[in-house]
Amino acid sequence: MIDEKILNVLRHDRDSYVSGEELCKLAGISRAGIWKHVEKLRHEGYEIEAVPHLGYKLISVPDALIPSEVKWKLKCRVFGREVLSYKKVDSKNDIAYELAEKGMKEGTVVLAEEQARGKGRHGRHWISPSKTGIYMSCILRPDIAPAEIPVITLMAAAAVATTIRDAVLPEVYIKWPNDILAGGNKICGILTEMKAEQDRVGFVVIGIGINVNTTRRNLPKGATSITEELCAGSRDANPRISRVELVKKILENLEALYNILKKKGSAPIIDMWKDLSDMLGSRIKVVLHNKVFEGQAHDIDPDGSLVIRLSSGVLRKVSSGDVEMVR
Amino acid sequence: MIDEKILNVLRHDRDSYVSGEELCKLAGISRAGIWKHVEKLRHEGYEIEAVPHLGYKLISVPDALIPSEVKWKLKCRVFGREVLSYKKVDSKNDIAYELAEKGMKEGTVVLAEEQARGKGRHGRHWISPSKTGIYMSCILRPDIAPAEIPVITLMAAAAVATTIRDAVLPEVYIKWPNDILAGGNKICGILTEMKAEQDRVGFVVIGIGINVNTTRRNLPKGATSITEELCAGSRDANPRISRVELVKKILENLEALYNILKKKGSAPIIDMWKDLSDMLGSRIKVVLHNKVFEGQAHDIDPDGSLVIRLSSGVLRKVSSGDVEMVR
Repeated sequence: MIDEKILNVLRHDRDSYVSGEELCKLAGISRAGIWKHVEKLRHEGYEIEAVPHLGYKLISVPDALIPSEVKWKLKCRVFGREVLSYKKVDSKNDIAYELAEKGMKEGTVVLAEEQARGKGRHGRHWISPSKTGIYMSCILRPDIAPAEIPVITLMAAAAVATTIRDAVLPEVYIKWPNDILAGGNKICGILTEMKAEQDRVGFVVIGIGINVNTTRRNLPKGATSITEELCAGSRDANPRISRVELVKKILENLEALYNILKKKGSAPIIDMWKDLSDMLGSRIKVVLHNKVFEGQAHDIDPDGSLVIRLSSGVLRKVSSGDVEMVR
Repeated sequence: MIDEKILNVLRHDRDSYVSGEELCKLAGISRAGIWKHVEKLRHEGYEIEAVPHLGYKLISVPDALIPSEVKWKLKCRVFGREVLSYKKVDSKNDIAYELAEKGMKEGTVVLAEEQARGKGRHGRHWISPSKTGIYMSCILRPDIAPAEIPVITLMAAAAVATTIRDAVLPEVYIKWPNDILAGGNKICGILTEMKAEQDRVGFVVIGIGINVNTTRRNLPKGATSITEELCAGSRDANPRISRVELVKKILENLEALYNILKKKGSAPIIDMWKDLSDMLGSRIKVVLHNKVFEGQAHDIDPDGSLVIRLSSGVLRKVSSGDVEMVR
């Protein structure tokens, strides 16, 4: 709390120095106390200059996934009202799930700088190198039945894809149900987990993993990152993307789409999803329960299923399974 | 383990005495050790006679929801292969859920003699007086999508209802989705909870609460028990029903129906459910999202939803909500 108070005063006055005396008054602690808090902020990555007789001045803020950065000027009412950050975790989704079980509010966000055991769908792994990606989980408590959960995943994919497109990389597309691709390679994966009764969802944890500044040698096969894609298209050898800015915009877009979903149902979400995908109309291969079949991606059903047109002309709905584009 | 070894020898030889020496050999422990284990079994409710020079004899077994009773001659391969019992818990479903999260196998059964905070649907309470009811939770790991979960509840209701009918009380009926009634009052409630990804169930906990030997003064309004119903119809003032026998038969029926569901899908389960319900064709009132509407219970959909015929003739599918019969 005191850290954030000090920080916010310094943020407001970035061109001049704030005297130690002023900070003492504001935080209600001694000069030595101020010094200790400034040291703590420096340790978190804030560059703070201290000049005798003048005071303190904020030189730079870190691109770190910490509450003081993510919550600063975040334009959300629900998403991010509670932000917890971890240096290294086994799985941020597991932590968010436990917090949700303990009653943490809708909109709580869990961030991690590194995951030892990042999770993908169906028990797969998600490689999560330190400090180069966004590993984020959000707790939602929607008043829906378990059968409606696929739309929550589509909503999350749409929020992330539109954020990446607007902010930095226009050429990303969603692949049903939960991947975001650039140039055919995975740039983001979304894992939705829930606790539910038979007819009512208790809570949902949306896990989002994005490769942001990750370099190719730290990425598994079939994956890419935002900076790798930017490098490929430009002469800028090493663009760095602000992860904090991306996180904030994702939260804002998530909140906007969630409000639309609650007010107007799944139709506008699915329309938006379709605009962000290049999949419909394409030939695809589906692996479902160890069986493979091909067809044309025809539509997204209002319940979030993928509708496939088989070669016989028959339409088949798929709510699970893995999809590959056939080139 | 040694307890069960001693117990099983005594069970096989209920008409004669088993010498201490024999038991020592069998269990591989001293006479004093045998005595200690016999004392422990007595403490659990087993009546064991000990006669000098003759040995030990099992006089009676307790009707206690403990592994040694439930697993004895249980005709199941999966259900009940692991049984955990507790004297008093907050909620057996919460315990089973935690165990499932830690990886406990399909078929694990959690039993409690008393619940401080028994749970009903949607955060409601389930009154669970000590040692008179069955409070049981089973862990399942079905390979299904979250949308298919309602059928698991219907399956559990069918297994319990058919058990109660066959064993003791022919006049019980299932009310959609998860209650079993006798004379219009609740005799059993079923609460299904799950952890799931968007397209795949991780595990399901089926919670079953049955009022067996509970007397009217220990039951809330609108509830009844098996013995109360038996008393009402007979001159037998105080029939006692074996809870252990009921639990075993429920587990056997659950396993049989679960195998049918896996092999043949939901249709035979739903047919069986319909045979055990008196609801279809009746006039009902549905409370859904604080709105009330009436109609005729028309059918159960293959996905487990209730289909209602409104007065306009329109059919409406309901997958959540509370249903009341209109008399």
